[in-house]
Amino acid sequence: MTRWPMPPPMLRALELAGEAAAFGEVPVGAVVVKGGEIVGEAHNLTRTTNDPTAHAEIVAIRRAAEALGQDRLEDCALFVTLEPCAMCAGAIAHARLASLTYGASDPKGGGVEHGARVFAQAQCHHQPEVVSGVGESEAAEVLRGFFAGRR
Amino acid sequence: MTRWPMPPPMLRALELAGEAAAFGEVPVGAVVVKGGEIVGEAHNLTRTTNDPTAHAEIVAIRRAAEALGQDRLEDCALFVTLEPCAMCAGAIAHARLASLTYGASDPKGGGVEHGARVFAQAQCHHQPEVVSGVGESEAAEVLRGFFAGRR
Repeated sequence: MTRWPMPPPMLRALELAGEAAAFGEVPVGAVVVKGGEIVGEAHNLTRTTNDPTAHAEIVAIRRAAEALGQDRLEDCALFVTLEPCAMCAGAIAHARLASLTYGASDPKGGGVEHGARVFAQAQCHHQPEVVSGVGESEAAEVLRGFFAGRR
Repeated sequence: MTRWPMPPPMLRALELAGEAAAFGEVPVGAVVVKGGEIVGEAHNLTRTTNDPTAHAEIVAIRRAAEALGQDRLEDCALFVTLEPCAMCAGAIAHARLASLTYGASDPKGGGVEHGARVFAQAQCHHQPEVVSGVGESEAAEVLRGFFAGRR
């Protein structure tokens, strides 16, 4: 059996998610790529930095925008291990990211295919191309391990 | 005729909105208050800082969380001149802000009473008390003046 190879940015995002748990952070990782190169990456940092907005996607977007010196990431792709929440989906739209690739769906907190469905609203002025399920089982496994360990 | 007095934090948010225009930033201001004292404030900073997430609310929340050394702002109130977008509404929920008071409604970009209606979703785990229309005409006037000047 041949398994579809995981895109390298998602492998890196999964690696970042794994590192997050060591900091007591919910293990989600995100990577922004431009022309095949990583221009911003992060795992969740809300507790470490006392910043309720410091989800992996937000931090990776801020780092990429800072690195590129521009507030629009039109030629960039975001890879994240978990379906973004409404806050992060909104940030992805504001950043004008060309595409969003995520791993596990998040029925309890997601804002892309669940709940707020941010990109489907008329108030959302940019829709990235969305691909889901890439690295799904690996992403979900990291999260399960984290929450099981806290019970 | 007696006009209902504007809460001081909204007066300050309006002042911040007015200052934003001088930086070429969309004139929206936000203030986080705890026990009557301002613990974080900002106007939009997306262009100045090359940060697509730097809406007034996000920056004010980040500053308040940093000042208080905690990622939850449970005893705090947020005042902002414009209805928050989906990103900012999500951030307000993540920050566990007790209340949100805003000025003008934003049918084209809002995510509280329009579109994503973030707080009304089952995926939103905290609902602040929401008051709208406080300083509405003043907030809308600052925005009108800004966009008229750019045409």
